Amino acid sequence: MEAQQVPKTCKVILSDTIAKKLLSEVRETLAKIEGPNASKPTLAAFLSTDDPAALQYAEWSKRTCEENGFNFDLRKVDKENLEEGIIAANNDDQVDGILVYYPIWVGNHSQDKYIKETVALSKDVEGLCHTHLFNMYHNVRFLDPPTNLKKSILPCTPLAIVKTLEYLQIYNPILAYGNRLFGKTITVINRSEVNGRPLAALLANDGATVYSVDITGVQVFTRGEGIRQLRHQVHDKEGWELKDVLPLSDVVIGGVPTEKFKVPTELLRDGAVCINFSSFKNFDGPAVKEKASIYVPSIGKVTIAVLLRNLVRLIANRPRPEGSAPEDPKDAKARSEAFIEG
Amino acid sequence: MEAQQVPKTCKVILSDTIAKKLLSEVRETLAKIEGPNASKPTLAAFLSTDDPAALQYAEWSKRTCEENGFNFDLRKVDKENLEEGIIAANNDDQVDGILVYYPIWVGNHSQDKYIKETVALSKDVEGLCHTHLFNMYHNVRFLDPPTNLKKSILPCTPLAIVKTLEYLQIYNPILAYGNRLFGKTITVINRSEVNGRPLAALLANDGATVYSVDITGVQVFTRGEGIRQLRHQVHDKEGWELKDVLPLSDVVIGGVPTEKFKVPTELLRDGAVCINFSSFKNFDGPAVKEKASIYVPSIGKVTIAVLLRNLVRLIANRPRPEGSAPEDPKDAKARSEAFIEG
Repeated sequence: MEAQQVPKTCKVILSDTIAKKLLSEVRETLAKIEGPNASKPTLAAFLSTDDPAALQYAEWSKRTCEENGFNFDLRKVDKENLEEGIIAANNDDQVDGILVYYPIWVGNHSQDKYIKETVALSKDVEGLCHTHLFNMYHNVRFLDPPTNLKKSILPCTPLAIVKTLEYLQIYNPILAYGNRLFGKTITVINRSEVNGRPLAALLANDGATVYSVDITGVQVFTRGEGIRQLRHQVHDKEGWELKDVLPLSDVVIGGVPTEKFKVPTELLRDGAVCINFSSFKNFDGPAVKEKASIYVPSIGKVTIAVLLRNLVRLIANRPRPEGSAPEDPKDAKARSEAFIEG
Repeated sequence: MEAQQVPKTCKVILSDTIAKKLLSEVRETLAKIEGPNASKPTLAAFLSTDDPAALQYAEWSKRTCEENGFNFDLRKVDKENLEEGIIAANNDDQVDGILVYYPIWVGNHSQDKYIKETVALSKDVEGLCHTHLFNMYHNVRFLDPPTNLKKSILPCTPLAIVKTLEYLQIYNPILAYGNRLFGKTITVINRSEVNGRPLAALLANDGATVYSVDITGVQVFTRGEGIRQLRHQVHDKEGWELKDVLPLSDVVIGGVPTEKFKVPTELLRDGAVCINFSSFKNFDGPAVKEKASIYVPSIGKVTIAVLLRNLVRLIANRPRPEGSAPEDPKDAKARSEAFIEG
């Protein structure tokens, strides 16, 4: 009875809401950069495992592609033929972007890494090639400096969290682009090479003080006092634990891939913003809703929306075919401005 | 030389920029609630002191009124005739709002307070009558609950700071109206009855944790854990000082009316938002720009814009003359919706 009298103060935001806004921007931008007679872009997706989660994800991606004007071409290929398959897609003008479901060789990161490097830079819709990763860590936002017409691609899950934070207005649009998290303290729980570490780097590059927490300890990612550095630096916080950083954090992002782990609600700052990107629930939902100002229980659909956003950006980056007529300046402008901020 | 190499990260926002946006909303709303044939609204301003600052402020107000479609009627009246003058203005249908320049009886608060109560509630453009102040402290946003068509008027300087924080996106529009500062920690330096205390109450009513600091000590204004209270509560923080609250604060608001006082820059949180509403500079400008994410050096012009905003809201609140034709539902809607949020 008492619970009914308590006014609800936590805003729960579902990934669908955020994804819808992104997808409408994706459709608009695609229409702007391609003429009315352009053919549908094609995303080739390589599935080489029998992981049911990957198959499920592929099915969601297919539906989102088709609902938004993209072809989704699922290619089931044995591990042994994967490299060959990717090379063929690299050379196929009908393929605009290439997606691969990882992990493939479970426990063998370097073999997966080899596959990531096989995907052509111009079709790397997941932002996992070394050049894209290098640019992300070094806070280099374009592939062609100093011309700066071709945006570098960011990995999908970290970018989905950036887009979520923009939607939640944690990025302050009053501040200059690139500095919009200045003054924010963010904890990221998980420091995997795929998600947690690139995410901490991205957020720190945008001006936040980021505590990156995993079982080996706490690191702080920051551009220094007054965010005067051009890219983030990383420092170990010797002896610090999750309990030391949670009370300091405006935003807490959980990405721990186990059922057992829960963020201790009592250590959260009153009115914190809580985001879960693990496929397990890192927050105790009912408890966190009594404490947080905003709670995002999952970001799955945002990740797929961001995949299509990256695909449109790859199309905008693509040089025009040799011998084609000079481009209308309006079209060239639309291409260079596609998702220019973020 | 070195200073030139450091990228500027602090955004300095001038009160003129914020005022312009508010004034354009004021003109739009006035046009909506009044027909095309309506006469210009009139603000009667009573000046009973020879304080040059008051005269200066009156001149600025006059210019802003005239530039935005209002009459500004400055009435210089001896202290002794002030009550009589106000009563005449209360009863004059040509006067839409009444402004009085305080302090009048310097050092005699109760005599000034008597004058504040003399101004009719329906013409109290400064929100200083007891009913308006009571509603503000009790987080009651309308004069006519539960109908809720007539908004209660908020005092100009505190409201100008609220509008400044909205402009700076410190109020998060993702959250429900009334809770948009949930999760924010704000220090207000000054706890005068005119400015600092009502400001701390307003910000806490909107969900912030507010540290109110003056020479007698620190108090915390908050709606409690999970902002479950309907209005703020105040607690003394025994033994706390400015140095204890500055490092915790996302936003620091200075309103100390002396040349000597300066906020110690080194205690500010990196990326803090700093706002000065004192006529003296409470922040060391060059130093604060190296540390803050946003710095607002003054709010003078915002206060005048808010005065006109309050005047338009008084006009929207006003009952229609007895015996007049039934109101067009569209006009009634425009009146009840004028500045409905805030």
